[in-house]
Amino acid sequence: MKLEFDYSYMMAESVGREQGTSDAELASEVTRCQDIHARIKTRREQGELPFFDLPFAAAEVDEILHLADKVRQRFDDVVVLGIGGSALGTKAVMSALRPSWHNLVSPGDRNGLPRLFVLDNVDPDYVADHFELLNPERTCFLVISKSGSTVETASQFLVARDWLNANSCLNYREHFILITDPEHGLLRELAEREGIESCAIPAGVGGRFSVFTPVSLLPLACAGVDIVSLLKGAAAMAPQVCHDDLMTNPAYLNAVLQYLAYQKGARISVMMPYSNRLFGVADWFRQLWAESLGKKYALDGSVCHVGPTPINALGTTDQHSQVQLYMEGPFDKLVMFLAVGCFDQDFTMQSYPDMPALQYLEGHSMAELINAERRATATALARNQRPNLTLTLPDVSAASVGALLYWLQVQTLFAGYLFDVDPLDQPGVEEGKTLTYALMGREGFSEKRDEFEQLQAEVPRRVLSVDSVST
Amino acid sequence: MKLEFDYSYMMAESVGREQGTSDAELASEVTRCQDIHARIKTRREQGELPFFDLPFAAAEVDEILHLADKVRQRFDDVVVLGIGGSALGTKAVMSALRPSWHNLVSPGDRNGLPRLFVLDNVDPDYVADHFELLNPERTCFLVISKSGSTVETASQFLVARDWLNANSCLNYREHFILITDPEHGLLRELAEREGIESCAIPAGVGGRFSVFTPVSLLPLACAGVDIVSLLKGAAAMAPQVCHDDLMTNPAYLNAVLQYLAYQKGARISVMMPYSNRLFGVADWFRQLWAESLGKKYALDGSVCHVGPTPINALGTTDQHSQVQLYMEGPFDKLVMFLAVGCFDQDFTMQSYPDMPALQYLEGHSMAELINAERRATATALARNQRPNLTLTLPDVSAASVGALLYWLQVQTLFAGYLFDVDPLDQPGVEEGKTLTYALMGREGFSEKRDEFEQLQAEVPRRVLSVDSVST
Repeated sequence: MKLEFDYSYMMAESVGREQGTSDAELASEVTRCQDIHARIKTRREQGELPFFDLPFAAAEVDEILHLADKVRQRFDDVVVLGIGGSALGTKAVMSALRPSWHNLVSPGDRNGLPRLFVLDNVDPDYVADHFELLNPERTCFLVISKSGSTVETASQFLVARDWLNANSCLNYREHFILITDPEHGLLRELAEREGIESCAIPAGVGGRFSVFTPVSLLPLACAGVDIVSLLKGAAAMAPQVCHDDLMTNPAYLNAVLQYLAYQKGARISVMMPYSNRLFGVADWFRQLWAESLGKKYALDGSVCHVGPTPINALGTTDQHSQVQLYMEGPFDKLVMFLAVGCFDQDFTMQSYPDMPALQYLEGHSMAELINAERRATATALARNQRPNLTLTLPDVSAASVGALLYWLQVQTLFAGYLFDVDPLDQPGVEEGKTLTYALMGREGFSEKRDEFEQLQAEVPRRVLSVDSVST
Repeated sequence: MKLEFDYSYMMAESVGREQGTSDAELASEVTRCQDIHARIKTRREQGELPFFDLPFAAAEVDEILHLADKVRQRFDDVVVLGIGGSALGTKAVMSALRPSWHNLVSPGDRNGLPRLFVLDNVDPDYVADHFELLNPERTCFLVISKSGSTVETASQFLVARDWLNANSCLNYREHFILITDPEHGLLRELAEREGIESCAIPAGVGGRFSVFTPVSLLPLACAGVDIVSLLKGAAAMAPQVCHDDLMTNPAYLNAVLQYLAYQKGARISVMMPYSNRLFGVADWFRQLWAESLGKKYALDGSVCHVGPTPINALGTTDQHSQVQLYMEGPFDKLVMFLAVGCFDQDFTMQSYPDMPALQYLEGHSMAELINAERRATATALARNQRPNLTLTLPDVSAASVGALLYWLQVQTLFAGYLFDVDPLDQPGVEEGKTLTYALMGREGFSEKRDEFEQLQAEVPRRVLSVDSVST
């Protein structure tokens, strides 16, 4: 089985010299890539990049499988309380590898596996909708936060605890598993003082690089995803994206192509799977790419305000929504298609022989159609000087998805160094956090609160009020 | 009840003169806006913009309600076969106004209302997943295409017809309702020759402006959405967004603010609801904004390659994914927040009095938290010279959502003229369509097929093949 990485339409010979990349430009990055590779290798050897080695931790997988087994025996519903990196990997793999009806059928029809919900927001309507659906006696919450202090997760935990207490005389502690830092933070403290079961996130693995830790593996295993094959696929990909030959390392090559296109004005990077099952992967990648590369400061401390804006689109669906813009709008995008070589299921179309506008579909399969539309779109984009590339998975299997996720993580880390920023931090979200603490009246943040109010007073308010009817 | 439109953080006094708009800039658009308003008024009077009047068509609503009633009595599941404008409005309103558990509970728990699925792709796995879930005897397909020739919808129709035929001896015709042009096109022809029930899309209403036609109203009514209140909300909004005083018309003002920001480099327009229920509205708007404004040609025929790129994000969720980039990356974005004044449900948090890192949440509600996070994010963005604005709905009711959708449609049409393009066409998708026909072997497209093959032959193939494991 092969993954294919086709970058024909990224090149100047296809899309022109203004938007396209030349061989000379690629060649000029070869030495820098070797240098970056060496830096990554050093950091890895110093234990600073443990995410590289996660697919090889077989002993931990046994523990996860064992814990998942316990959860499955006891509960009908598993609810992840987590946000960002604590939610996106789980959602991506779940929607790739379990049928879209997983949560909709009776327990018998999903082989007794629990339903899986990922509660990744503090919208009270959304949370309440979930509680209406769930039976507290049969619900297990996986509370996931590396630091333990994520306010959304803390809030969900408090509300879920109340809900369990209010709905029965059960011991709420038995309905939680806390997935957090092995030693530090609020959730670890809670696990110890309350005697709640817990599971450790390996030290040094940041949220957006945690898909191969218990953060995602435990909920996925609970829901019946084959995490062993997922990791096997990732492990098989590892040697192919961890060497320094740019022209044969697809992760490095993709990063360089995206970096060079960015320099030419492609500030927007669309990931567009032609597969509903892979749409979640695009959403997961959206965090990885944005949060790793979108930075104010370069590595030397100078101000750079850099970073491509990732967009997730879905083929064919977004041909009827976004492709008009991609085809005709500003030259500020590149599109990365995800294609599927072999779908699990297919349909052969039988048409009306006497209706010419339908007859051409006769005998063709739906898989042929979706792939023809993808090729047509890629080619039309190229003819309009819009750079694009296509990554084809042989199938949407656990191994293929694991391989893809591993590749994209390595690509992102490498791209960080190309863009000359730290791909592992996210300093830009701190101000919003402290302002939230201030607005919620957290102790120690009253100065910040004053600052906020002063700002509000200084800025003239521009507000239009518009009448509407009530229902 | 009031909708509030707060654009304080769009202005130069908040975000600086480079990114922000000055009063003088706004004032300089006043006359042009009056001119555009007059042009729209003329076109409207000539019957060229019927979407403006859709909320006032009470008689047609009665027909829709009657038909929905028939569907509900006969079927347990309603499946929309449609894509783009035939799907997005339905998905947006459904997710706004029906609980997220609608499709997950037993018929009794949703008052006997049918489940609603929107099949907006030709991914065979995705389609097969749906068929596995559905009982053919109790399933009604709404086949929606204005032109009738949308290949994805045609393909779905053929496959659904086979599925019905294969699964029982029922008369498949009774399981379809075709929603299409009143006179022309393939679906109209099918309705007549097969004697399939049909429903007309008013002439002159394009896909992305069709949310207030049977395209969305019929499936929504089937699923129990109060379409009368939806239209009432839209009708109440109409006079407030159909007058030429820029500074008090929120639709025009929003269009102008977005247009001016685009000129200053904000090529990306993020819509970020702090409400899961409104996330679908952002996805619907994404089509409206991209397809209406993303154009190669200006109205005078000159080449312009213009168009903001819309992005849908979700608060608070995307604070943990995209906000790092929005805060620190390039100055190429504006953010439009959607806020909810009053959620339907809420939770008061009870914390641990002796844990300072949690204690500050005590007594606060979850609604307070999500709104504090939104205000914190908006303020932090402004302090980093990132323009943003906030549209607050009083609640997520049918009337409020109707009002919002009406507003955004008027805003988009108006913005088309600001950007000097035709907001109602989408010529850029034609090439992809004809190439698809060519690849699928449709009669009359063999030249296009030759063209495709020649292009493939001319462009050197750049493909990396990467080993992976099979599961």
